[in-house]
Amino acid sequence: MEKHFSIDDLHEFTRKVFLQLGCTEGHAQQAAEALLSADLRGIDSHGIARLSGYVRLWEAGRINAKPDVKVVHETPSTATVDGDKGLGLVVAPIAMEIAIRKAVNCGTGWVAVRNSNHFGIAGYHAMKALEHDMIGIAMTNASALVAPTFSNERMLGTNPICVAVPSGVEPPFIADMATTTAANGKLEILQRKNIEAPAGWIQDEKGNDTRDAHALKHGGALLPLGSDRDHGSHKGYALGSIVDIFSAVLSGANYGPWVPPFPAYVPMPEGQPGSGLGHFFGAMRIDAFRPADEFKENMDKWLSRFRNASSIDPTKKVLVPGDPEREMELVRRSAGIPLLQPVIDDLQKLADKFSIGFPGY
Amino acid sequence: MEKHFSIDDLHEFTRKVFLQLGCTEGHAQQAAEALLSADLRGIDSHGIARLSGYVRLWEAGRINAKPDVKVVHETPSTATVDGDKGLGLVVAPIAMEIAIRKAVNCGTGWVAVRNSNHFGIAGYHAMKALEHDMIGIAMTNASALVAPTFSNERMLGTNPICVAVPSGVEPPFIADMATTTAANGKLEILQRKNIEAPAGWIQDEKGNDTRDAHALKHGGALLPLGSDRDHGSHKGYALGSIVDIFSAVLSGANYGPWVPPFPAYVPMPEGQPGSGLGHFFGAMRIDAFRPADEFKENMDKWLSRFRNASSIDPTKKVLVPGDPEREMELVRRSAGIPLLQPVIDDLQKLADKFSIGFPGY
Repeated sequence: MEKHFSIDDLHEFTRKVFLQLGCTEGHAQQAAEALLSADLRGIDSHGIARLSGYVRLWEAGRINAKPDVKVVHETPSTATVDGDKGLGLVVAPIAMEIAIRKAVNCGTGWVAVRNSNHFGIAGYHAMKALEHDMIGIAMTNASALVAPTFSNERMLGTNPICVAVPSGVEPPFIADMATTTAANGKLEILQRKNIEAPAGWIQDEKGNDTRDAHALKHGGALLPLGSDRDHGSHKGYALGSIVDIFSAVLSGANYGPWVPPFPAYVPMPEGQPGSGLGHFFGAMRIDAFRPADEFKENMDKWLSRFRNASSIDPTKKVLVPGDPEREMELVRRSAGIPLLQPVIDDLQKLADKFSIGFPGY
Repeated sequence: MEKHFSIDDLHEFTRKVFLQLGCTEGHAQQAAEALLSADLRGIDSHGIARLSGYVRLWEAGRINAKPDVKVVHETPSTATVDGDKGLGLVVAPIAMEIAIRKAVNCGTGWVAVRNSNHFGIAGYHAMKALEHDMIGIAMTNASALVAPTFSNERMLGTNPICVAVPSGVEPPFIADMATTTAANGKLEILQRKNIEAPAGWIQDEKGNDTRDAHALKHGGALLPLGSDRDHGSHKGYALGSIVDIFSAVLSGANYGPWVPPFPAYVPMPEGQPGSGLGHFFGAMRIDAFRPADEFKENMDKWLSRFRNASSIDPTKKVLVPGDPEREMELVRRSAGIPLLQPVIDDLQKLADKFSIGFPGY
């Protein structure tokens, strides 16, 4: 059971909630836009459904609503940013903007961020580069849910990467993905519906493959992309590790099992080696490599060749990364964002708490 | 059946073969070292077993033994290099050196290469950054063997990526991987032994999953990391695509189904949009983000925490990317490189062709 809400109404509501936390008008606006980009693109697990989670982190003193986001170290093409415990939804756009500015000046820009919080979807941040004719890259670590190959310990987050590539007339290439076989959001859907998980998504607390979608609640773990050693799980594990190292070892954030958990009731890991969680951003000017029109002409050729690749099954078009999310956004901008009743109830509680109206109620 | 040869003997032989092609002394030395680094690290499919393949490309006029490798476009942090049809084994080290020099000057360096040939293993090139206290990144496209999710067309190569990260006292992190479920070299081993492939490695010409290790000879394709849609093959497909775009659309090389084939007898694809095949390299100074000693201390902590993660099975240690290859190199430097009889026969023919001695014969 779900109801539909207009993106504008949800944006207005979300902005007001962030204002209630003490965010500035500009930050509240930015945080709402970044958060809701997930709902628009169909990544429901990272959108407004998480709003009350951010509020609980703020209540627990883990989010600073008025952060002083600062560059603490830099070179012509790099910067390290301290997010001052701010919302990742606010810190990340500032960091991405710095990466873009560096790229304007010297071809590319690379920014590592520490002392931040969850930033929503990687895609929102990477796509900021597109309007500047740049390739955008965004990644973040997250609290540990994923076991390395041969381990039954949770050591890595779902650690997503997004790479967004500009194009000419074809819609752009936007690969935005968790480095696990299945994103945690997909598992949550199965949990809610009490459906078994496909083999290869999760393992139990001993490290055995399991179909029990609730295994994570009993010490189980998500599996890296590849699922098992024979199918390349060591590669998914390596990708998640690269995200962790770039986001946190370069920046001075927490890494591996020390990354702060998103649920505010979960205690912080002991002996943390850094500050908050970490992100990493990149921007590369396409004309730092070849004239932009030449690049776009070839990128269009790449995109149309792949979109027109021969399909196994006429009902399944060969897609380019980003196609499903773009199509979803078109639908949702007109038909609205569908929210499940538990999410609506959760938002209604926020509305009551802060005495602000919830749309349609 | 195999025999062991010392790395020095194989190096001497390989160097002489490249000299016979007309390479300069410096280039022959460099090409031999890069090629044999694969044999040392246990990636037998990319080492000396390919030497006669390079010779056949040279005979077919597809490799220029005296390339004029040139920067054709640059910014402070980027360069585009034209490899002048040279051996990738020679062009890639020059490009990586440029990336390192750019990083010395402005924090990071990024080099896209066109008009090149196969460069051996990505790991050799990325690891060059380590001695400079830099993170090294190397990737290359390759001729199409891999089908995108839902397609039965070969559109991408196995497109490997390597990321090498320096450390303090712990051995470094070196993730060097094809973006497919299984590398083609692993499939070749099964073909030679007439063993079935695990499910999820390959599909037949219609796009059905198959266990037939020879399916690629009949129009089949390798599968992207993840194997099928339910297990994230769209992510492996996205990764292979990113490598293709960075290596070739940025540089002006051929991409997708237009990448030149490695076997010299396979005709060039028609209507190629670029020059040769492409690579992409990156170097990031760790002290462009934080003091190098701080980074190394934390990277050591990361490495030892992961190496000591709880294991599912006491006979299977939890590994960090690069551990198996490093252990293999230690063994092979002392015990020698094992070569199969067909490879030895092939090298003997090269020795006869160029009237140079083959070790032990």
